[in-house]
Amino acid sequence: MTEAAPNPAMTPRRRERRVPQVGVRQLPFARVYNRYKPIEVLSADHIEAIHRAALKLLRETGIEVMQEPARRILKAAGAEVDLANDRVRLDPELVEGAIAKAPASFEMQARNRAYDIGIGKGEMIFAATGGPAFAHDCDRGKRPGTYADMCDYLKVVHQLNVLHQEGGCPIEPTDLPADTRHLDFYEAAITTSDKTWQCWALGAYRAEDAVNMGGIAYGLSRAEMKATPITLTIINSNSPLRLDVPMCEALLAMGKAGQPLAMTPFTLSGAMSPVTLAGALTQQHAEALAMLALSQINEPGVPVLYGGFTSNVDMRSGAPAFGTPEYTKAAMAGGQLARRLNIPYRSSNVTASNIVDVQASYESMMSLWGAIMGGVNLIEHAAGWMEGGLTASFEKLVLDAELLQGMREFLKPIAVDEAEMALGAIAEVGPGGHFFGVGHTLERFEHAFYEPMLSDWRNYQTWQNAGGKTGTERANLIWKELLRSYEAPPMDEGRREALTAYVAKRKEEIQAGKMLPDPID
Amino acid sequence: MTEAAPNPAMTPRRRERRVPQVGVRQLPFARVYNRYKPIEVLSADHIEAIHRAALKLLRETGIEVMQEPARRILKAAGAEVDLANDRVRLDPELVEGAIAKAPASFEMQARNRAYDIGIGKGEMIFAATGGPAFAHDCDRGKRPGTYADMCDYLKVVHQLNVLHQEGGCPIEPTDLPADTRHLDFYEAAITTSDKTWQCWALGAYRAEDAVNMGGIAYGLSRAEMKATPITLTIINSNSPLRLDVPMCEALLAMGKAGQPLAMTPFTLSGAMSPVTLAGALTQQHAEALAMLALSQINEPGVPVLYGGFTSNVDMRSGAPAFGTPEYTKAAMAGGQLARRLNIPYRSSNVTASNIVDVQASYESMMSLWGAIMGGVNLIEHAAGWMEGGLTASFEKLVLDAELLQGMREFLKPIAVDEAEMALGAIAEVGPGGHFFGVGHTLERFEHAFYEPMLSDWRNYQTWQNAGGKTGTERANLIWKELLRSYEAPPMDEGRREALTAYVAKRKEEIQAGKMLPDPID
Repeated sequence: MTEAAPNPAMTPRRRERRVPQVGVRQLPFARVYNRYKPIEVLSADHIEAIHRAALKLLRETGIEVMQEPARRILKAAGAEVDLANDRVRLDPELVEGAIAKAPASFEMQARNRAYDIGIGKGEMIFAATGGPAFAHDCDRGKRPGTYADMCDYLKVVHQLNVLHQEGGCPIEPTDLPADTRHLDFYEAAITTSDKTWQCWALGAYRAEDAVNMGGIAYGLSRAEMKATPITLTIINSNSPLRLDVPMCEALLAMGKAGQPLAMTPFTLSGAMSPVTLAGALTQQHAEALAMLALSQINEPGVPVLYGGFTSNVDMRSGAPAFGTPEYTKAAMAGGQLARRLNIPYRSSNVTASNIVDVQASYESMMSLWGAIMGGVNLIEHAAGWMEGGLTASFEKLVLDAELLQGMREFLKPIAVDEAEMALGAIAEVGPGGHFFGVGHTLERFEHAFYEPMLSDWRNYQTWQNAGGKTGTERANLIWKELLRSYEAPPMDEGRREALTAYVAKRKEEIQAGKMLPDPID
Repeated sequence: MTEAAPNPAMTPRRRERRVPQVGVRQLPFARVYNRYKPIEVLSADHIEAIHRAALKLLRETGIEVMQEPARRILKAAGAEVDLANDRVRLDPELVEGAIAKAPASFEMQARNRAYDIGIGKGEMIFAATGGPAFAHDCDRGKRPGTYADMCDYLKVVHQLNVLHQEGGCPIEPTDLPADTRHLDFYEAAITTSDKTWQCWALGAYRAEDAVNMGGIAYGLSRAEMKATPITLTIINSNSPLRLDVPMCEALLAMGKAGQPLAMTPFTLSGAMSPVTLAGALTQQHAEALAMLALSQINEPGVPVLYGGFTSNVDMRSGAPAFGTPEYTKAAMAGGQLARRLNIPYRSSNVTASNIVDVQASYESMMSLWGAIMGGVNLIEHAAGWMEGGLTASFEKLVLDAELLQGMREFLKPIAVDEAEMALGAIAEVGPGGHFFGVGHTLERFEHAFYEPMLSDWRNYQTWQNAGGKTGTERANLIWKELLRSYEAPPMDEGRREALTAYVAKRKEEIQAGKMLPDPID
């Protein structure tokens, strides 16, 4: 992205009348690696204690598995199944043996292979927010999600180079029928962008539709997609200690198709998990272990992530809180637990703020530092999440893109050698001088420092003369400029038509009660 | 601080007419320790390379020392002095030998000994902003600093428990005469609060006045204050490579009085230092080494800090930028360089934003993470700094206090033992239950989690019904409530009168041209 070139055919007068061009500068798309040592908030002994306690919990208390096929698979592998309450108890050896089959890293392919990404081995990806039911922007306020808002949001997500992946529907299109709106979302995600995208873990049919549609759009067989996956889904346990039917269905179907699963207990400390962080982490770990084991028994070697989402409630009101100091510590501890299993780690960028303000900014920073210095490999909701995940904000999307760009620059190591230490330039300038004009500066200044998308570094008077806009007001201009300048990435016309035909056919099938699609290969 | 108790004598009607009570909840005052391993952005080899390069710079290029007594002291210790340009060249052995005499940690005493603090050994202190010439709040906007604004700010600083130290005059009282306003500031700092405070390194007389006034107010002899210092000052080099006269005077006078000196080069990369971070850090290190060596030659064992303030300019405009990714890395590298010398480390909480918005929030977070995970011992400007240090904002003060409280909580280790892992409670609740009512929760919920001062976690509707205030608007209410409920800490009447008499006498002396006070013991 560069500043829009002026149109020489326009008279100055006509130019003045136009809507002001923001001109969005941003970093290019890149794969991102973290070479710093993670922050360890727990000792190795404590990590081992939590791991052992979680295994004990799965052995003694067990976990409720509500889906029959999942219970059957676990029983066949040696688990003890109590049919009275669907409780499954797992031996430590069974759990650890299964999880040992999971890969330590994997690759994903995008429709545009320039957007391929890797998860693991120090590489981290930033995925946009997924799941909010409401949309928000500063012009129109908060409203229930619509297909139109979802499409606009997907376009801005595509435009933001720092985002590696669409995050599984940023705004639920609540104006479309619930049973088939996943088809509309998948079609929009695949055609609006050619980056990777996430699908819904809400029953087997929504997972199968995702794989079918990916195959059509990318021109790939099931085997090719299994070799290098194209989509990813988040699997949430129903904390405490319950795996429900739709989630189990998706886990098994996506697993058989070889698509990555991010296993994420939602252990809100004080509500769905113990009021102590160590207790919440133990429960998180137990639920993750159970899901990870099930995935590897179902399909050995399927790519998986260990998800940490431990936060806490406000004990005065019971309201969930995000981006708290406890959240940050839990995010780092989660990374330690994932590394204990040698599995990639998923964390998030979260806030409870109802608006894009200083609180949204600092809670997101606390989350991002927790994730990144926790050794994360996938940041889900990396951009756009607001109001505890109920709302996707257009301005928050831009704010978060700025935070992510900043963190990406922070992760770039400082170069140290004779030329960089610049003793010659320092001697040349000497006491009391300045470095603006010396050769050492002139050779490097254009790309010496990070150039922000959102930050305004102008002095007070210049800033005030230019309207004195806050960061949130500037973010509003930026997303609108990104949306205005959006162009759909190219797509093979035949595949595009086949995709549309598939969606139409599936809508008819689902309306007629045929939920599960025929697999396409 | 707790919620203000309702006054039973007031009728409901009269109560309604009163200004709404905010009720500020905050953490108690506490000494803060960081037990996490610092983030190392440079390898040990790179740190050694920068250290060696800085020593080479001091040997070959040298540093301009503008004050004759400082040059004399350095020459007597073995430095080579070029009288043609006041250039002083120092051998590595001289520099390293002198710095080896500096203590690795030290204590400071407050007027109220409950506010005593330590610097070093993992302990960090948070000092309010010092130096801004302008004041800003959301009601009255930006204006030149006045004595009245300074006093209000000092009161709020005193009220905020998370702040350990006043930071050397938050708002310059530009309505008072320049030559004597340090006396007004010192008197206000000492009487408004009974925490420790910082003084001005602007000539020997302002340093001597600080020590004299501290002695009067605390009832301490010079020897007692030397044994446990009462004030601290920031010594800035004039980068590149220059120590000016007022700064040298203060360095020598404060040093002889045994008061701590935070040596801080202001190496803005691309302007006053090389455009490369390694170059800026090398120059920062060289200037810090020279100041540290001078301090220890002048007064062996005087407490000192290694200050890092490397940031970068916007290469498009030359404007200084703060809280950038480069700033964060430099803050962490600075901590590594300080630890190389076994000297406590000073960093800052900075932003270039002109207003308390999302940018102010994320730039401050980037600074704080850089400082704290850089292993800082003194965070200068920990609360209140805005607009690149030109302005002290009342709302930013509250925002930063929230960030500092959050970081303090983040530094509290997660407890891990059988009770905290809560296997019993998890089994008791079982699949699908919740933890609100179980004994394990009820025993702990009141103090389980951090309770924020500024964050609003209410749901959207409740928040909107309560006025839908942004974090900045809430910060505005909080500082006004803190100011309203301020009460001056008690002070011995005789000392209070002696202090006022000293200020009156000194104003006369200075007006008559007698700048340096007679030392009081």
